[in-house]
Amino acid sequence: MNAPADFVAMSAAVRARLDDALAAWLAPKGKAARAVSGEVAAAAGCVERLTIRGGKRVRAALVGASYVAFGGAAWADVLPAMIAVELLQTYLLIHDDWMDDDATRRGGPSVHVALRETLGSRALGDAGAVLAGDLASAYAQEALLDTRVASDRVLAAARVFARIQEEVVVGQISEMRAAAPLDGPVPSVEEVHARKTASYTVTGPLALGAALAGADAGRIEALARFGRPLGVAFQLRDDVLGVFGDPAVTGKPVGNDIRKGKRTALVAALDGDPLLARVLGVADAPVADLEAVVARMESSGARARVEARVRELCAEANAALAALELPSPAGVSWLRGAVTALGERSS
Amino acid sequence: MNAPADFVAMSAAVRARLDDALAAWLAPKGKAARAVSGEVAAAAGCVERLTIRGGKRVRAALVGASYVAFGGAAWADVLPAMIAVELLQTYLLIHDDWMDDDATRRGGPSVHVALRETLGSRALGDAGAVLAGDLASAYAQEALLDTRVASDRVLAAARVFARIQEEVVVGQISEMRAAAPLDGPVPSVEEVHARKTASYTVTGPLALGAALAGADAGRIEALARFGRPLGVAFQLRDDVLGVFGDPAVTGKPVGNDIRKGKRTALVAALDGDPLLARVLGVADAPVADLEAVVARMESSGARARVEARVRELCAEANAALAALELPSPAGVSWLRGAVTALGERSS
Repeated sequence: MNAPADFVAMSAAVRARLDDALAAWLAPKGKAARAVSGEVAAAAGCVERLTIRGGKRVRAALVGASYVAFGGAAWADVLPAMIAVELLQTYLLIHDDWMDDDATRRGGPSVHVALRETLGSRALGDAGAVLAGDLASAYAQEALLDTRVASDRVLAAARVFARIQEEVVVGQISEMRAAAPLDGPVPSVEEVHARKTASYTVTGPLALGAALAGADAGRIEALARFGRPLGVAFQLRDDVLGVFGDPAVTGKPVGNDIRKGKRTALVAALDGDPLLARVLGVADAPVADLEAVVARMESSGARARVEARVRELCAEANAALAALELPSPAGVSWLRGAVTALGERSS
Repeated sequence: MNAPADFVAMSAAVRARLDDALAAWLAPKGKAARAVSGEVAAAAGCVERLTIRGGKRVRAALVGASYVAFGGAAWADVLPAMIAVELLQTYLLIHDDWMDDDATRRGGPSVHVALRETLGSRALGDAGAVLAGDLASAYAQEALLDTRVASDRVLAAARVFARIQEEVVVGQISEMRAAAPLDGPVPSVEEVHARKTASYTVTGPLALGAALAGADAGRIEALARFGRPLGVAFQLRDDVLGVFGDPAVTGKPVGNDIRKGKRTALVAALDGDPLLARVLGVADAPVADLEAVVARMESSGARARVEARVRELCAEANAALAALELPSPAGVSWLRGAVTALGERSS
């Protein structure tokens, strides 16, 4: 069975259906916002456009694949939960882009940049963006609770959804470093990846699908043994693509992660390198210095080590998946395909 | 029956029990945060301290009063929902204080001010505060879902909780004015009050209590005819206290609302007054000018009109309460007492 092709086809079907469903779900929200004030209309419009513009919908596909793998009838049953994970992503992206002051997102202006323009000042735009993120958070909760399965299952999914939010926010804070070191542990790159990315990109969506299919807490915990390595592999792959990916495919300029000072696995592998120290977090670092660091990431074997770790984590995920002994062959095939699609992706 | 005394006594009992329950609920969160990193510990610590320091717990008391009024056995049954409304308040206060750059809250530093200090920079403190608010939002959802009543009822309450968040955030954005006017309606002061304050302070907590007691959507809608005028009265009373209240009791300096440019009912009543235009939103306006505006608010009859409106709204709330014909005399007595306590409060 050609598992990756199965997941790719399933994802494409989810994406087509979900894009329409998101537009339909958000349309009345936009209408209500326009009836309140121009400012509310602007903020809600930003949430709507960013959500509709976006993404591969991989999180939504994982909700559906997990739901079916745990015995759910058809992924379309849980379309509201798929809408919810996309709105959660919108909420997190809006706050994150404001924090990083990233000007573009998904081929358009980030929300704080758009609102600075519409509202006419930096302070209004920044406040508006934080509130627009808060609005998307409320929308996400509402959407999840629209899911039409038994109350017990929706409630279990809502508990998962709240824990996802706690974990991802903790992950985002755990990536911050105070100007002067604080007492307490310093999380590793993989620990940050697990909390900040794996949580809401992989383990969370999988747990949502399983909860909606009626899986109990023990099964959902076992599922994390599949989701967590896969989620970390996804983010490590992102770290590699951020340096070695084709900018035409990834949509990010070469060296962007380094210029922004992101502590990726590749950066961690060169810890203490004086060349790295000269460019990391230096927005206007000379291109020649950047290229030298990128070459060092290759020649030192750092890239090869990270890629080997991705393969190791994917193997770990596949072993955990097999151990779950899930009831639906189609669902399992999608999940196996997701390992390949997420671990080997090029964009 | 001495209704206000009943509500005051009930609120005091709720507050005593809730203060302990909040501390117990937050303690393991703080412990988990300290195991992640110093930065996570700092953010979670701010959430914990602000929550525990705070307030009259009037929102929590309204959840409990409504639960009992709609036939629930004892307010202590819904303690987790009370924890949830207090954590929701923490989330909103953190984001709001950052937006307004208010330095103090509940007798201590606001969270962004505390985190600028701990993390060592303005940018880190601001990002940390937005994330601390997001963390409190996740906590609030988790707490609500801990409520031990039938699944259907918890689910209904979760739907109410999500809608409260949508409404209050829309209310906060509706208070903003773009530098150059945007197309669209301009909400009145009472419309802003209804969305921004009544929603999460009165109608939301009441609806949560009712939903947890098993009230259907129609009854919850009817309940809003009680909660909305009461919530607007609460905020109008706040507008009056912000100008005429005793700073020793309210904890706010005289003229603070005017200096901050808040569009209160008293400000709206003096629309177009050239004296007002000279001090509204002017942080360093001379005290003499401020005092002249305050005197004008009195002499023009603006204060008297706002106070008359508060009485009118309280009467409207009491009539709506009677029309609800709720099953529990004790619960109704608490709610009647809440009208007096909220409409006539001096702090």
